[in-house]
Amino acid sequence: MKLIDIYARLRSDIQYIEKELERSIDTEHAVLNEASLHLLKAGGKRIRPVFVLLAGELGRYDLERLQRVAVPLELIHMASLVHDDVIDNANTRRGQLTVKSKWDNRVAMYTGDYIYAKALTIVTQLDNPQIHRILSKAMLDMCIGEMEQIRDFFNTSQTVRNYLLRIRRKTALLIAVSCQLGAIASEASEESARIMYKFGYNAGMAFQIRDDILDLLGTEKQLGKPPGSDMRQGNITLPVLLALENPDLAPALLEEIRHIREAEGQADTYKVIQLIRRSDGVERADKLATQFINKAIAALDALPESKTKKNFVDIAHFIGKRLH
Amino acid sequence: MKLIDIYARLRSDIQYIEKELERSIDTEHAVLNEASLHLLKAGGKRIRPVFVLLAGELGRYDLERLQRVAVPLELIHMASLVHDDVIDNANTRRGQLTVKSKWDNRVAMYTGDYIYAKALTIVTQLDNPQIHRILSKAMLDMCIGEMEQIRDFFNTSQTVRNYLLRIRRKTALLIAVSCQLGAIASEASEESARIMYKFGYNAGMAFQIRDDILDLLGTEKQLGKPPGSDMRQGNITLPVLLALENPDLAPALLEEIRHIREAEGQADTYKVIQLIRRSDGVERADKLATQFINKAIAALDALPESKTKKNFVDIAHFIGKRLH
Repeated sequence: MKLIDIYARLRSDIQYIEKELERSIDTEHAVLNEASLHLLKAGGKRIRPVFVLLAGELGRYDLERLQRVAVPLELIHMASLVHDDVIDNANTRRGQLTVKSKWDNRVAMYTGDYIYAKALTIVTQLDNPQIHRILSKAMLDMCIGEMEQIRDFFNTSQTVRNYLLRIRRKTALLIAVSCQLGAIASEASEESARIMYKFGYNAGMAFQIRDDILDLLGTEKQLGKPPGSDMRQGNITLPVLLALENPDLAPALLEEIRHIREAEGQADTYKVIQLIRRSDGVERADKLATQFINKAIAALDALPESKTKKNFVDIAHFIGKRLH
Repeated sequence: MKLIDIYARLRSDIQYIEKELERSIDTEHAVLNEASLHLLKAGGKRIRPVFVLLAGELGRYDLERLQRVAVPLELIHMASLVHDDVIDNANTRRGQLTVKSKWDNRVAMYTGDYIYAKALTIVTQLDNPQIHRILSKAMLDMCIGEMEQIRDFFNTSQTVRNYLLRIRRKTALLIAVSCQLGAIASEASEESARIMYKFGYNAGMAFQIRDDILDLLGTEKQLGKPPGSDMRQGNITLPVLLALENPDLAPALLEEIRHIREAEGQADTYKVIQLIRRSDGVERADKLATQFINKAIAALDALPESKTKKNFVDIAHFIGKRLH
C-alpha cells in the first residue's frame, strides 16, 4: 500500500483533525490568529496525527479522544518550527514565507509560545495525567534538543553519537510519543504502547537522517527552501560528519565549512554539497537510516497481523525511501 | 505584620522551594543550566510561591504537593521574563545582566522554552488533571497578554479598559492561579479556592499598576533597571493613559512619546517622566490600584479569622503601598 492510500483510508479523520487544528488556534488576537493560521496553512505531512490515528486502531478507536492527542502533537511540532525559524533566520519554509519574515521575530517568538501553551491546554482536557506527563516531557526533551543543536553549530569535531543524541531529542522522541499516545489514548495494552514507542522512535530517527540527506541532495523546489540550509546555519548533519571521516576529503571540506561560517549565512553552499556528494557520507548515512527502519519494522513483530500493522510497515518503508 | 515577618514565618518552606527551583532547572546541558541558574539567582520576591504556601494553609497543608505547584508557577513567571527581555531588548533586570545580553537571543528563547516545558513536567507529577488544566490555561492567557502588549506598543489612543485587559492576562491571572492552586493542591473547599482566585486576581491587578507607577517614579537603584523602561519600549501604562486625558498636557506628551518612538529605544525619558509627574495620572492610577486592593481584601471576608487571612491582608496592603 502506498502512502497516499493510507492517507486516503484515514482521510475523513485526518480532515477532522485538520479542522480541529484550525479551530484550536482561533483567537481574538488578530496577528496571533493570522500568524498561527499562516503556519498551519503552510501544510506539512501531518505525520504525527497520522501515527496517532493508526496507533489508535490498536485499541478502542475513539476519534474524539485521539484528536486531543493528535492536535497537541502537531501544534508542538509547529511551535518548534516557528522558534526554529527565528534561530535559523529562515525566510522560507515549505516554499512559504516564515512567520518571522512575514511579521517579525517578536511575533514569531510569542506565536510559538502561544501554540505550545495551546497544545497543553488541549491535552489536559483528557482526564489522564499519564498522557499529560508524557507530552510535557516530550516537549522538554525537544527544547533540550534545540539547545544542543545551537551548541553544536559548526562543531566539526562532534561525534556521530553526538548527532544521534541530538536528533533523538529534536525529532525522534516526539514521533515516538505520537505513536505511544495514540495507543494509550485508545486504551490499547501496555505492550502495544511500548511497541508503538519503539516503532516511532526508530522511524523518527530514520526520518531525521533522511531529512538531513535530502537537505544536501534535494532541489529548492523539492525542499521548499534552498538546499544546503542546514550547512548554512551551521547544523553539521550525519552525511557531513561521515564525509569528514575521509582523510583525503576532510581538509577541503573543513576549509569550505570555515568559509560558510565566516560568511554568516550568506555563503553559497554549492561547493560543499559537491564535496559531500563526492564522498561516501550520503551512502553511509542512508545505510544507518535503513538500519533504523529495520529496527522500527522489527518492533512491530509482536503485533498480530492487521491492516494497521501493514500500514505502519508501509510508512516505515516510505520513510526509508522518501524523496521529499 | 510586616511583609518581612510573613517571609520569616514561612522561611523554611520558602527555602525548600528555592532549593527545588534550583534542582528543577538542573540539566546536563551547560549553557541551558547556566542561563537558567543565572535567571534564578537574579532573585525576585517569589510572590507566587508565597501565595501558594499561604493558600495551602486553608486546606491540608502538604509542602510536597504545594511545591509541585509553587515551583512551576515561579518557573512560568521566569520563562516569561526571559522572553520579555528578548522582546524589550533589555540588557539588565533586577540590576543583573539579562540572559539575552549575557548570552544571546537564541539562548534566551530556548531557555524560556525549556523552563516553560519544565514547569509543565513538574506539575504533571500531581495526579490532578484539574490543576494541569488551570496551569496550562494560565500560561496560554499570559502568552496572549504578551502579544497584546506588542500590539499596543506606542498606541496612545488605547483605552484604559484595553490596558486593564492586557495586565489581567499578562500578570493578574498567574497570581490569581497561584492563590487558587495553593488552595486546590491542599484540598481546601471549592469556596476557599474561589475566594483565593478572586483575592489573587485583584491583588495582581494592583501589583501590576503599582509596578507601572514605580517605573515612572523609581530610581535606577530601586528598580534594578533605568526608570522609564516601559515608555522606552513603547509600553503605554495606566499613568500615561490617564495623563493623556488632560487636554493641556496631551500635546506635549504626545510629542515626547513620538520622539521616543522614533529614537527606537535610545531616547532619554527624563522629559516624559517629568510631564507625567506634573499630571494627575500617577495619583489617579494609584487610586485605581487602591480600589483593586480593597476588592482583594473584601474577597477574604468569607474566610474565618486566622493567621493566614491576616497575612493575606498584610500582603495586600503592602502591594498597595510598595515602593520597590
